[in-house]
Amino acid sequence: MYMFVNDYSEGMHQKILDAIVKTNLEQHTGYGMDEYCEKARLAIKKELKNENSAVHFLVGGTQANTTVICALLRPHQGVISAVSGHINVHESGAIEATGHKVLALPSDDGKITAKQVEDCVKGHFDDPTAEHMVQPKMVYISNPTEVGTIYSKKELEDIKKVCDEHNLILFCDGARLGCALMSKQNDVTLEDMAKLTDVFYIGGTKMGAMFGEAVVINTPKYNEDFRYLIKQKGGMLAKGRLLGVQFLTLFTDGLYYELARHANECAEKLQNAIKEMGYKFLAESPTNQVFPILPNEIVEKIGEKYGYSQWEKRDGEMVIRLCTSWATDMAKVDELIADLKALTK
Amino acid sequence: MYMFVNDYSEGMHQKILDAIVKTNLEQHTGYGMDEYCEKARLAIKKELKNENSAVHFLVGGTQANTTVICALLRPHQGVISAVSGHINVHESGAIEATGHKVLALPSDDGKITAKQVEDCVKGHFDDPTAEHMVQPKMVYISNPTEVGTIYSKKELEDIKKVCDEHNLILFCDGARLGCALMSKQNDVTLEDMAKLTDVFYIGGTKMGAMFGEAVVINTPKYNEDFRYLIKQKGGMLAKGRLLGVQFLTLFTDGLYYELARHANECAEKLQNAIKEMGYKFLAESPTNQVFPILPNEIVEKIGEKYGYSQWEKRDGEMVIRLCTSWATDMAKVDELIADLKALTK
Amino acid sequence: MYMFVNDYSEGMHQKILDAIVKTNLEQHTGYGMDEYCEKARLAIKKELKNENSAVHFLVGGTQANTTVICALLRPHQGVISAVSGHINVHESGAIEATGHKVLALPSDDGKITAKQVEDCVKGHFDDPTAEHMVQPKMVYISNPTEVGTIYSKKELEDIKKVCDEHNLILFCDGARLGCALMSKQNDVTLEDMAKLTDVFYIGGTKMGAMFGEAVVINTPKYNEDFRYLIKQKGGMLAKGRLLGVQFLTLFTDGLYYELARHANECAEKLQNAIKEMGYKFLAESPTNQVFPILPNEIVEKIGEKYGYSQWEKRDGEMVIRLCTSWATDMAKVDELIADLKALTK
Amino acid sequence: MYMFVNDYSEGMHQKILDAIVKTNLEQHTGYGMDEYCEKARLAIKKELKNENSAVHFLVGGTQANTTVICALLRPHQGVISAVSGHINVHESGAIEATGHKVLALPSDDGKITAKQVEDCVKGHFDDPTAEHMVQPKMVYISNPTEVGTIYSKKELEDIKKVCDEHNLILFCDGARLGCALMSKQNDVTLEDMAKLTDVFYIGGTKMGAMFGEAVVINTPKYNEDFRYLIKQKGGMLAKGRLLGVQFLTLFTDGLYYELARHANECAEKLQNAIKEMGYKFLAESPTNQVFPILPNEIVEKIGEKYGYSQWEKRDGEMVIRLCTSWATDMAKVDELIADLKALTK
Repeated sequence: MYMFVNDYSEGMHQKILDAIVKTNLEQHTGYGMDEYCEKARLAIKKELKNENSAVHFLVGGTQANTTVICALLRPHQGVISAVSGHINVHESGAIEATGHKVLALPSDDGKITAKQVEDCVKGHFDDPTAEHMVQPKMVYISNPTEVGTIYSKKELEDIKKVCDEHNLILFCDGARLGCALMSKQNDVTLEDMAKLTDVFYIGGTKMGAMFGEAVVINTPKYNEDFRYLIKQKGGMLAKGRLLGVQFLTLFTDGLYYELARHANECAEKLQNAIKEMGYKFLAESPTNQVFPILPNEIVEKIGEKYGYSQWEKRDGEMVIRLCTSWATDMAKVDELIADLKALTK
Repeated sequence: MYMFVNDYSEGMHQKILDAIVKTNLEQHTGYGMDEYCEKARLAIKKELKNENSAVHFLVGGTQANTTVICALLRPHQGVISAVSGHINVHESGAIEATGHKVLALPSDDGKITAKQVEDCVKGHFDDPTAEHMVQPKMVYISNPTEVGTIYSKKELEDIKKVCDEHNLILFCDGARLGCALMSKQNDVTLEDMAKLTDVFYIGGTKMGAMFGEAVVINTPKYNEDFRYLIKQKGGMLAKGRLLGVQFLTLFTDGLYYELARHANECAEKLQNAIKEMGYKFLAESPTNQVFPILPNEIVEKIGEKYGYSQWEKRDGEMVIRLCTSWATDMAKVDELIADLKALTK
Repeated sequence: MYMFVNDYSEGMHQKILDAIVKTNLEQHTGYGMDEYCEKARLAIKKELKNENSAVHFLVGGTQANTTVICALLRPHQGVISAVSGHINVHESGAIEATGHKVLALPSDDGKITAKQVEDCVKGHFDDPTAEHMVQPKMVYISNPTEVGTIYSKKELEDIKKVCDEHNLILFCDGARLGCALMSKQNDVTLEDMAKLTDVFYIGGTKMGAMFGEAVVINTPKYNEDFRYLIKQKGGMLAKGRLLGVQFLTLFTDGLYYELARHANECAEKLQNAIKEMGYKFLAESPTNQVFPILPNEIVEKIGEKYGYSQWEKRDGEMVIRLCTSWATDMAKVDELIADLKALTK
Repeated sequence: MYMFVNDYSEGMHQKILDAIVKTNLEQHTGYGMDEYCEKARLAIKKELKNENSAVHFLVGGTQANTTVICALLRPHQGVISAVSGHINVHESGAIEATGHKVLALPSDDGKITAKQVEDCVKGHFDDPTAEHMVQPKMVYISNPTEVGTIYSKKELEDIKKVCDEHNLILFCDGARLGCALMSKQNDVTLEDMAKLTDVFYIGGTKMGAMFGEAVVINTPKYNEDFRYLIKQKGGMLAKGRLLGVQFLTLFTDGLYYELARHANECAEKLQNAIKEMGYKFLAESPTNQVFPILPNEIVEKIGEKYGYSQWEKRDGEMVIRLCTSWATDMAKVDELIADLKALTK
């Protein structure tokens, strides 16, 4: 059984493991104030080229989303998101648990547009009963999105422009950011992210680290007292050095990008092959998640040898998610392709 | 200028005012423990014919919705509602502020169906990642709905059945309940409400009282410690006797029903007349709110003499809400009809 | 049985009732946007002599405290209060329910000092683990306090100075503010309140109104979007005109002050008489609440004719609260004094 | 510089590291549903000897405290704690952020007594205004406490008895539980913990693991939907296998106990030596934290070679915390003792 279920089936990349092993018995200050965290922050900030950016390391994505949103919104304010956004679907209500409504906008490809955001915020403030409704104040996007699509630089610039005009905070969930940055369709850099968002994060958990997300706050006022919030929301690791060591390794010699590129290559090969076989997709993805629509009997057959995620049941067929990662064995990709071909006849 | 803007433009019915005046200088225990509250509870319970029902008086509707929902749900649980439900649109995020997601279901007529509820709850528990999502636990309906439509007894029974099968709590917002009960299309009684819901409330604010909502809890376990929650959520009036006096008056000699009947009659006359003029409606309403779709120039004209609510802008025309109440002057209804006819040519 | 239990046993002052009756059938805009609210705001602002002050009318005190605190604090911030402060004891956890810790300071007389506040805030920021603790950000005081004592102008100035130096918000609960302002020991005016606090409120419920608290925000930035919060926390009355009519009456021809003076005079007579009988007090109160310490057998005896609040059980004796109000009959005060004297031998 | 600052200065015990290395590239199901988590659960449950107990692995202590408390309390309920309890002091308001008041009881030695708990709960329910106050519903204790003291079996039994009588939930924070269990003064076993508490946790972070806390729920009804809460509060690690591998190692061949014993032995040697030098302690601790009261000049001197925590400033002297752990080098303990002796004259 080989798993294409998700991008966190394995532990961590060997270089990270080596660094963990090597530094294990060193004594360090806790809570992210150690020298490895400091070095990792510098390594990341070097790429951001934004002197204002502050970098914080949190353990996981739910914490990152929750902490950022509750740190920056007042109680009557909500966060705009694609209906498929992770915060709207898969956080067990963590955002609402901090008191904030997710204002979900329709989306087919996991993305939202500047126009949608503008209509939403104008619609609110034009309404004579605005005070009786949740005030849109933050825009949450994921890059890549939950269905693998990515934002172009132009799209980000347009959203940023609307946010600036309407005093909205732009926050980008980058749980798989590396895969967006290394996508063949991509024209966005980390430097752009630091310019075009107020806050974003660089995912580690799904990109080769054991765990960890690097939250980058580009607008200084939003950094005020942020560490109190990290602590309160449970994201401040006692042995913070573990996060520092991991991110320092990921941002040494371009490891982060290299791992993302591998994940994308595996997915691309898989998607292209499935496409050639004549199957359709939920959305064509330029990153490490592939969403083919396959007949039920084929899904069942490949399920005997490979792990996959069931995405959506349809009549006689199913949308499944096949996920590759830094750890994916390309030989297994080839094997899956061959098996699919055989089943397709 | 005569207002059809809402059903809370005037103060209170004369009989209620008389009772307030008459009892003003009596000394009473606070917080709803006085004799008028006790009598009002008994008067209401007499109509409920459910020995298990407990009655609490709160000041307003936001409090009623918020207090009931946060009293009965655990932090990971959400409340199913029509997308147009008051808790999803017009409570400034009060529900989310207590930590709970509103799980909005599509609806054209303001109602949701037993089938929709069942699909929602089954969809949740069938999902292998259910634990990562908000668990549906309560069903919120409004009767009448925000667009004036009402539930039939059969519809309520069907929803109740699904709730019982899936261990869901059924909660009905009755801010205008009297208008539902007195609608010509209605086949539901207060007694039915006490059987078919776990919790509902009997609105006073929009039904002739100065203010006040009587929350009725029919399932005893949900009544546990409810008064702590009323206090915490700001709904426990120091001079609770004011609520007792009002509801006792409303439930003496059928005043509550009489006032609702008057509101409905005014609306019916208005809706029928507008229909005869050939206009369409957002939804045909058997209660005290009427939602005609009128050309912009006509809306503008009648706006010079009458207050109305702007509901939805469309191309060249507008959905407006005309609202009647216990206090509406039928002569003014006739006048508005005449003016509309003249404008319609 | 005559009640000295609290200051909300009766309905409302006759002038307020007259105004309610007179305006009852007028049609008005809802939610505090009507002309009576506007006039009441102007009448109050005239006394504040602070152009920056904004006035909002809420239904009750729990709402006022909760709404102000949650509107102004971020999630990691707490509110300093005397341990006996209403928000620390008698709001059923309403403050914590909005996410904020009450940082309780010891107090014998219901007051806290500038020195205590300074020590608390310095202690926090000097601690190397400050980020792991709740950040003090607001100071809550009650004037008069829960035991009837009042703040001098000098004391308020000192607290305000510490707040300004440490960027703290000063919030004063004025549920019985009139009684402080009309106390013989008082040297504070409404104008001072508007200068020396960021937010305070002018209580109506306990001062002769049917219900209602006028929240005054003197620091404009704290007024931003405040109405969203009033709505969310359930304090925005649909028929807001009821609040406008009441506060307009209270602030016409000095009625507010006159009612407070009467309450104080009744209490003073009572306290002096009891003192002459040789009894001690929890604290000597210059306002409308009196806290004598009486032998249990005397408490029991007077309990047969008069309502009182049990405050604190001690060995063989009890601290009770006797509360007077705008509605207290001075003849009943005399009667109580006579009865106590007789019981005292 | 050698650190006695805390018990999380180093990474993890070598056996745990070996297990992490060995299993690194295996593919596993996420979120704690993998085979290592299952084996670790079984290994722990074997020691609990309670068939009803359920075991969950969370990343850190703030999450464990927050998740348990908010999962089990209703909004009007609070948690009793010693004033020095971690939840009352060092969680940045995490408990209040989920809506619950911490009801702090005075304590000199970090412990609370059955009598204190009983007085608190009786005091609440005897008060006629109970509904206006936070209802005590849970008792939080730490074993060992924040100052290193431990509960005897008798003390736990007494508290449990009061909890059962008053329908309170007993929750024990076991961040350093191993050190309590292995203390020479201890007479409590894991089996006792599973009988005498509703919920407790077995700390990993401070006991030799990289991170992780094993929450044990002994009362089945409190386990309902607990995983939703873990996810919502950010404690559900994507690569949950990391927690399974660690706890399986800790509970193989008694490693958990062995590491705790070492930490205690280091501390005991240190405390005894300092005592012999004639110094006093904040509290005498039978576990891995030692709290000597030393003259400022000596504190300053040893601060040049050793890390310590500043606990409390006093006149001319300071309470410091010296913390030992599984990783403490006994030779360094000897060196510190020698240095202290030399400084002591």
